[in-house]
Amino acid sequence: MGVLKSFFSPESVAIIGASKTPGKIGHAIVKNIIGSGYSREIYPVNPREKEIEGLKCYPDIAFIEKKVDLAVISVPAAGAVKVAGQCGRAGVKSLVVVSAGFKEVGKEGLALEKELVRICREYGMRLLGPNCVGIMDTHVPINASFSEGFPAAGNIAFISQSGAMLVAILDWSRSTGIGFSKIISLGNKADLTESDFIGDAADDPNTRVILCYIEDIADGKHFLKIAREASVKKPVIILKSGTSQAGAQAASSHTGALAGSNLAYDTAFRQSGIIRASTMADLFDLAVAFSSQPVPGGSRVAVVTNAGGPGIVTTDSIEDTGLTMSRFNKNTIEALRSGLPVESNIYNPVDVLGDAKTDRFSLAMNSVLADENVDSLVVLICPTAVTEAEETARSIVEAHRSRPDKPVFAALMGGESLAGGSAVLSAAGVPSYTFPETAVSVISGMTRYSRLRQKSEALAAEKLSGVDPRVVKEIFGKVKEEGRLVLLGSESSLVAGAYGIPAAPVRLAASPDEAALIAGEMGYPLVLKVASPKILHKTDVGGVKIGIKTAEEVREGFMGIMENVYRHFPRTAIHGIEVQKMMPGGTELIIGMSRDVQFGPLIAFGLGGIYVNLLKDVAFRLADGLTRREVLAMISETKASTLLRGYRGEEPADIEAIIDIILRTAALVTDFPTIAEMDINPVFAYSKGASALDIKITVS
Amino acid sequence: MGVLKSFFSPESVAIIGASKTPGKIGHAIVKNIIGSGYSREIYPVNPREKEIEGLKCYPDIAFIEKKVDLAVISVPAAGAVKVAGQCGRAGVKSLVVVSAGFKEVGKEGLALEKELVRICREYGMRLLGPNCVGIMDTHVPINASFSEGFPAAGNIAFISQSGAMLVAILDWSRSTGIGFSKIISLGNKADLTESDFIGDAADDPNTRVILCYIEDIADGKHFLKIAREASVKKPVIILKSGTSQAGAQAASSHTGALAGSNLAYDTAFRQSGIIRASTMADLFDLAVAFSSQPVPGGSRVAVVTNAGGPGIVTTDSIEDTGLTMSRFNKNTIEALRSGLPVESNIYNPVDVLGDAKTDRFSLAMNSVLADENVDSLVVLICPTAVTEAEETARSIVEAHRSRPDKPVFAALMGGESLAGGSAVLSAAGVPSYTFPETAVSVISGMTRYSRLRQKSEALAAEKLSGVDPRVVKEIFGKVKEEGRLVLLGSESSLVAGAYGIPAAPVRLAASPDEAALIAGEMGYPLVLKVASPKILHKTDVGGVKIGIKTAEEVREGFMGIMENVYRHFPRTAIHGIEVQKMMPGGTELIIGMSRDVQFGPLIAFGLGGIYVNLLKDVAFRLADGLTRREVLAMISETKASTLLRGYRGEEPADIEAIIDIILRTAALVTDFPTIAEMDINPVFAYSKGASALDIKITVS
Repeated sequence: MGVLKSFFSPESVAIIGASKTPGKIGHAIVKNIIGSGYSREIYPVNPREKEIEGLKCYPDIAFIEKKVDLAVISVPAAGAVKVAGQCGRAGVKSLVVVSAGFKEVGKEGLALEKELVRICREYGMRLLGPNCVGIMDTHVPINASFSEGFPAAGNIAFISQSGAMLVAILDWSRSTGIGFSKIISLGNKADLTESDFIGDAADDPNTRVILCYIEDIADGKHFLKIAREASVKKPVIILKSGTSQAGAQAASSHTGALAGSNLAYDTAFRQSGIIRASTMADLFDLAVAFSSQPVPGGSRVAVVTNAGGPGIVTTDSIEDTGLTMSRFNKNTIEALRSGLPVESNIYNPVDVLGDAKTDRFSLAMNSVLADENVDSLVVLICPTAVTEAEETARSIVEAHRSRPDKPVFAALMGGESLAGGSAVLSAAGVPSYTFPETAVSVISGMTRYSRLRQKSEALAAEKLSGVDPRVVKEIFGKVKEEGRLVLLGSESSLVAGAYGIPAAPVRLAASPDEAALIAGEMGYPLVLKVASPKILHKTDVGGVKIGIKTAEEVREGFMGIMENVYRHFPRTAIHGIEVQKMMPGGTELIIGMSRDVQFGPLIAFGLGGIYVNLLKDVAFRLADGLTRREVLAMISETKASTLLRGYRGEEPADIEAIIDIILRTAALVTDFPTIAEMDINPVFAYSKGASALDIKITVS
Repeated sequence: MGVLKSFFSPESVAIIGASKTPGKIGHAIVKNIIGSGYSREIYPVNPREKEIEGLKCYPDIAFIEKKVDLAVISVPAAGAVKVAGQCGRAGVKSLVVVSAGFKEVGKEGLALEKELVRICREYGMRLLGPNCVGIMDTHVPINASFSEGFPAAGNIAFISQSGAMLVAILDWSRSTGIGFSKIISLGNKADLTESDFIGDAADDPNTRVILCYIEDIADGKHFLKIAREASVKKPVIILKSGTSQAGAQAASSHTGALAGSNLAYDTAFRQSGIIRASTMADLFDLAVAFSSQPVPGGSRVAVVTNAGGPGIVTTDSIEDTGLTMSRFNKNTIEALRSGLPVESNIYNPVDVLGDAKTDRFSLAMNSVLADENVDSLVVLICPTAVTEAEETARSIVEAHRSRPDKPVFAALMGGESLAGGSAVLSAAGVPSYTFPETAVSVISGMTRYSRLRQKSEALAAEKLSGVDPRVVKEIFGKVKEEGRLVLLGSESSLVAGAYGIPAAPVRLAASPDEAALIAGEMGYPLVLKVASPKILHKTDVGGVKIGIKTAEEVREGFMGIMENVYRHFPRTAIHGIEVQKMMPGGTELIIGMSRDVQFGPLIAFGLGGIYVNLLKDVAFRLADGLTRREVLAMISETKASTLLRGYRGEEPADIEAIIDIILRTAALVTDFPTIAEMDINPVFAYSKGASALDIKITVS
């Protein structure tokens, strides 16, 4: 647990603002700590009381004789800051500040919160909150919160940025029997954040799955590092809210959090092995499954049912969610054929028929679980005249125990007549649902984790040769000096070239004669383009001439472009005309970058050309820790990859060259945070090599 | 009810194959009919018994003195056929055949089933089944089935192709308190099908919502007609299984049903106003909501919550599902501002804060329900120290009753502490859920219905002038005579032209000289194309020459193409070279048709050109009853529509011309069922008019 040990397993706890009055937060905390069975020192602090709940009450933390590990502070905001100083002087290690009235109420509160953090830093104290519900550990046990009720002990750690959500889930969990290892209410996250608690729970032997509800992430870079490490050890499932436009507005009015873009969160979660839950039900369904079942080794699902229709529904659901129906091997087919009635369906879904008793279910389950082509099993029980709900449920538990490496789920499609079966399964930790689609959705989520975890690998930085940051630095220096935010084509070409990106040569000409001179040096054919960062769609205003083959055409083209552009933009500054080597046509791609507030540069790849925005065939990855393998996965997500593999008999493109450009772009934008946005559109992919044609770089 | 009256409300019922032995189906049916409270005549028939369950037993249906409306047959398949004849002779109106052993067991069973249908037709009897569970009506009441338990009376009609599914749902419904009006087990659908029962339920005053589980549709055309009429009257929600590849396999091994393609089902459902449920939970969540709540007038949702985090989650969910967050009017904002504490969020989602009691919820709910910008309401209750679950639940019921035209849903995010509130809501028919996303998903489904219903309109056939079927008939006659399945370009062009589709003129030339002659008549520039249905990608093998401007180029082109093609396809029959008028370039579209086994021609529209299969930007509609408005909706679903509206400053295309081609294509393929497939790719759209460039027609 490291630094967080004094939060979850303190040797002593002081409650500052402890109260004798039921209904007050300061009273609830004292009662909860005692009630949770916490067996070490508890020190209520309140200058107006002598004793609270049978414990000696101290007027001030300074009066407590022994060292205090954890102080829970529940006094108004301004007082809390003062008290924090006293705690620091008394040598307290950790603070939980439940008091509200900080950042969430505006400017004055923010000032108080900053002061609170300053004090904590001064004395080396760590801080949870302010404006939080508190913290629980069911294994210590301790309930240092003001939330009513202490959950059952279990192996799920739940970290919530919303106190109300946490309280609601605790209340709900008591009626469903879900157990938790730790419960953390993050509050305003002034010091400790989700990252700290995810990292801690990853090393907690009592925790098997980590659950988070968050509205924003405090430090994207730190989060990525922690999440990558944690998700290799155990599943981390996050419900991130504030995804929508309106949702983001609500988030910012709620916690004053600056919500990052939804896409960046999606990308960051996936790249760091986090499972993103889509709904609250999804979050808890997954948590319960991970808490009791092994992670499936693959995506092949077997179904055993006593009714055809529900078997079809399950099959549909399996295919719809990207899982696959297992194809059984010969031994399995043989075992099913010899053990089941002749009318049974012995292929997947196995239909043991409506008159099946437990023996047929058993035979079918054991046969398919023994099959190496089966990664997980869904058993459906529909009520019939002969259904033995409880006995069949027990046989499911036995089948699961005999093959504990494969997850098993049940759908008991009925009500009271199957309730006994549900109880048997629930007691044995086999998840069961009313409808089979829930089971399939859970398996799909678990399989996603198994795939993400397989992908998690040591992030060896890709080594790139032929990179010269000095050239880039020089160009950016000049651009800044001139007060520009957009690089000229000739500058962008040099920047890209300095990082080994095969950019078509571009040079700027101020006059027709200079253009002709450059053309002579470059060689024909050439493209001429107006050089003006203000003009976005150059082709549309006659600002581009292609296929220039002679010096005469260069001079004419120069004049023609100037005339065309002047007609459309009479008052726009023109830097001149760019002379660019004309490259042979290839598959048109886009490689780009936009910078996310939380997670830094996001690299984009997809179909290029003028229809980029229309087709939206673009995949994203964070530049941070981007590997060759991840780039390949990113390319495969797009329709562009179909073209690159050789569409309709065309020659395949040089994918290695494309990967190289993407990695070099990632390196460039990582090395130079001043690059705000970058677009290479198009990149031409050839059967050998590739060319970056039009490179747009914006700096900040 | 019309013809189905004798099923649901018979004056008398005979049970043929009635039994005294508990556990036997023939016993269960007698017991169920008596137990359901059916108060009219019941006649058990069994030659070996004198009396069953206190009722006189008849040796044969002929011995029953009075007329029998409904006979439920439960004897082995071969016997059932014989008994059906006796029923016919005795003047029975309707048969429910629960016996299995028909189509579902193979060839012999199919023969028996055909004979059974023949007998029913002979005597004018209608038939439900065979291989079904039976039929129920809770309002008559009657339970003419062998399923255990009779559901509570309600307003949901449930029609199921799977008997097991039906039994499971009945069992489940008893523990959830969901009531039904009618329950129908379709079985093999030898005579009566889902369409008959949907049509019947649409006119049933006791039914408010129609629910179906189906694996296939018996007669697509009939279904479309019935569904269109029914869905205007009340919501029809269908869970159609067998959607996936593997699912379709399972369906065909299960009921011998021939599953149509999933896309055609999707299209048919949408075009006929049917709501397609995605999961079983979805099916029943929607059913319960429709059964108690009004259909929302629009997509604007208001949220009232006592906690911020869950409010954000709800907001996300609303935006994710295509609904919108209501923007309150001034009066509402003013009412909320003056009635709620200053820290509350008075914009949507309305946060009445964690210390809210019932009065604040009441004020907020009544204010937003009075707002004309609110179409539906979701209320979230999170447990806090002061939450008054039951009283607040009662206030939700009151708010709903004061505005019964707007649907209200609750999410009670907790367990035991809120159970009292759930009970209050459930008793009053206000749907409540644990998590808010379910409420949002239900509102989304209901809103989809409200939108579909608005769209349902009188299907006036679009009148098309300038259509000449005789030309088409002649060409197809010739093609068939020659034993071909694919039309030549010149033939396709004539066929399209005969239906007023602006096809570029194409004529077939057998020699260079004939080509030059045709060229002279057509005028330049021209395109030459090899005429051979075997060669699919003509450009790839040098089979196309464009921009032909002189007679000399025509002759040279002819020879060149012949040489190129011979090199690739030395043994392929070449009909000659097609000379086509070269049309100016425009936005490339595809308009096509594929024929679905169930629903007939499916019209496709989208981005055209060589990347059709890659980009998959195609929308579909059934040709059957296709209206101008529906075509416009279809176009809007595609990215092509963005291009047509004028992308990046280009002139908008002539959408009316495109709509016209689509409607004419629909008319052509409807008039000529011999057309198996048709592709116009590309269609060039211009700012005025459009041209069909390459038309491929396959006949069967």
